[in-house]
Amino acid sequence: MSRYIRERYKGFQSYTPGEQPKEMEYIKLNTNESPFPPAPGVCRRLKEADMERLRLYPDPTGRRLKAMLADRFRVEPENVFLANGSDDILNFAMMAFNDDEDTLLFPDISYSFYEVIANLHGVNFRKVPLQEDMTIDYRDYCRDDCNVIIPNPNAPTGIALSLEVIEEIVKANPNHVVLIDEAYVDFGAESAVPLTKKYDNILISQTFSKSRSFAGGRLGFAIGNQELIRDLITLQYSTNPYSVNTLSLILGSAAMEEEAYYRKNAEIIQENRKYTAETLTSMGFEVLPSKANFVFARRPGMDGDKLYRKLKEKGVLVRHFTTERIQDYVRITIGTKEQMDVLFEKLREILQEE
Amino acid sequence: MSRYIRERYKGFQSYTPGEQPKEMEYIKLNTNESPFPPAPGVCRRLKEADMERLRLYPDPTGRRLKAMLADRFRVEPENVFLANGSDDILNFAMMAFNDDEDTLLFPDISYSFYEVIANLHGVNFRKVPLQEDMTIDYRDYCRDDCNVIIPNPNAPTGIALSLEVIEEIVKANPNHVVLIDEAYVDFGAESAVPLTKKYDNILISQTFSKSRSFAGGRLGFAIGNQELIRDLITLQYSTNPYSVNTLSLILGSAAMEEEAYYRKNAEIIQENRKYTAETLTSMGFEVLPSKANFVFARRPGMDGDKLYRKLKEKGVLVRHFTTERIQDYVRITIGTKEQMDVLFEKLREILQEE
Repeated sequence: MSRYIRERYKGFQSYTPGEQPKEMEYIKLNTNESPFPPAPGVCRRLKEADMERLRLYPDPTGRRLKAMLADRFRVEPENVFLANGSDDILNFAMMAFNDDEDTLLFPDISYSFYEVIANLHGVNFRKVPLQEDMTIDYRDYCRDDCNVIIPNPNAPTGIALSLEVIEEIVKANPNHVVLIDEAYVDFGAESAVPLTKKYDNILISQTFSKSRSFAGGRLGFAIGNQELIRDLITLQYSTNPYSVNTLSLILGSAAMEEEAYYRKNAEIIQENRKYTAETLTSMGFEVLPSKANFVFARRPGMDGDKLYRKLKEKGVLVRHFTTERIQDYVRITIGTKEQMDVLFEKLREILQEE
Repeated sequence: MSRYIRERYKGFQSYTPGEQPKEMEYIKLNTNESPFPPAPGVCRRLKEADMERLRLYPDPTGRRLKAMLADRFRVEPENVFLANGSDDILNFAMMAFNDDEDTLLFPDISYSFYEVIANLHGVNFRKVPLQEDMTIDYRDYCRDDCNVIIPNPNAPTGIALSLEVIEEIVKANPNHVVLIDEAYVDFGAESAVPLTKKYDNILISQTFSKSRSFAGGRLGFAIGNQELIRDLITLQYSTNPYSVNTLSLILGSAAMEEEAYYRKNAEIIQENRKYTAETLTSMGFEVLPSKANFVFARRPGMDGDKLYRKLKEKGVLVRHFTTERIQDYVRITIGTKEQMDVLFEKLREILQEE
């Protein structure tokens, strides 16, 4: 860091993104991307895009895409916020709703980015331990003295909460904002979007990165009460009013017309997830019950970091976290059946080498 | 705002982006976009883009584009920072280098976004009045007790400082960061990038939005000492590590291979600017000497807001600011000669109606 860096950022640890290897020689099961390309209609729209429009700033209101999302989720456009990836939503929400004396709660084992952003903005937070079986006890969040972030399904565990339980949390916190991060919701969990009509303190964050095969396009959206959405827009307009670029707006709209394609892909992922969990279990792994496009698994007696490294040597990238409680585990993105079969083959080789 | 908004953001005023009319019936001279489309090679690259890559996260290091920028500016890739538009650079720099007890200086008449971001992050700032003739007195910034932002050329005045004067400011502030916002530098001002090799406290911000006809693509970059750049990366990785999307990286690289096309366009803008200034002067306007792709002009006895509204009625959008000191002025983006001729025609009509 430079000698000019602000005192509070000295020694600051930023988030470490999953490896994005430059060459494509790896089977990439490490960053929860979709193994499927964007829908044919999205590809077509790109080829037909009017390049002339790129000389102009994007529509900062994202009017067309907002209208389509509103239609899809049966809310009004005023209930929709668009962002340059859902990380931006987390960032703005963290800034918007946490006063100096507030505390933010999120699970101890969760998306590690929450802690990074909270530290960045000086937000007080407390990590609530998952239960022994890696599930969230929703009662830990029913206290109305803290803001809350719950990823549903949780990452990296993949375990989901029911809509009923989410509603209990929201109901119990009428004076605090409950942010449900639904990045992985399309792979079998229940979305809490309907609750946004009933409660003014729930904010839902979703993304085009996973189920819509659009991680490279950076497009996230939030749904919530109109006033919460306006707060997010205020902060976005105060840092980068044109943060969602023109092509992402165009391609995002195109993706909304291809729901059937993406739903089908999500079903295939769920089938492959079942196949993966069964196969890993048969090989002696413990696999947490996932509703996401990844599984979190460990094999008793086998070090998670070693497993990650051995797989990498053999051309398969998975994700390993050094956090003590989960260092035995690896997080494996669900790819195509063919990719998972390569993974199993490599795992068998590794087990034999032991 | 919602009842959950953080205390310090109550009543917060965000930046108001220039109008982006949904229909293209206007001659749009209000947001300093280029009237020229992206280069043919950029358009071609988009049509040929491998859509499959969009399912993957972008390269967070932007390796290829950074290498090309480093080559172009004769620095190392470690001296280059990529951002989702240069507003993000301002945002990160504002966060990174201003301690609670620091003060940030920038001109009173300048890019209004500086004040918005400073307020957002609780940065103390002082606006230094421009001189009577709307120029910056560089000596106001030679004091080494404050961080500094200077846009060069300044906006909305368009007036540029010489490289020598910029160096004086940088030299006089060895313990503070001097950010030179060169969004408009390609239209006739001198870039201070060479100073980044000599001084560790100067940071240059540039953008693809103006001279490279890519406002819709959201691509900005900063150049500076490796440690300053690392500070910016730390903050970027702590809010949104994948903030520059894949297509912007690809098209940005393509744009770097089309420097001749963009240089030629910048020359045409400079010719049209001269023509515009001369014509406006002949019509009784006072036009500040601009080195940017816009002119800032007023006609004694004529209200700036009224002029803006009358032009809008007639199908020409220009930008008007309500800040007291400049409310007589309008900022007029330089378009094609044909567009400027329409502007003059409408102005003549308005003058006759008076």
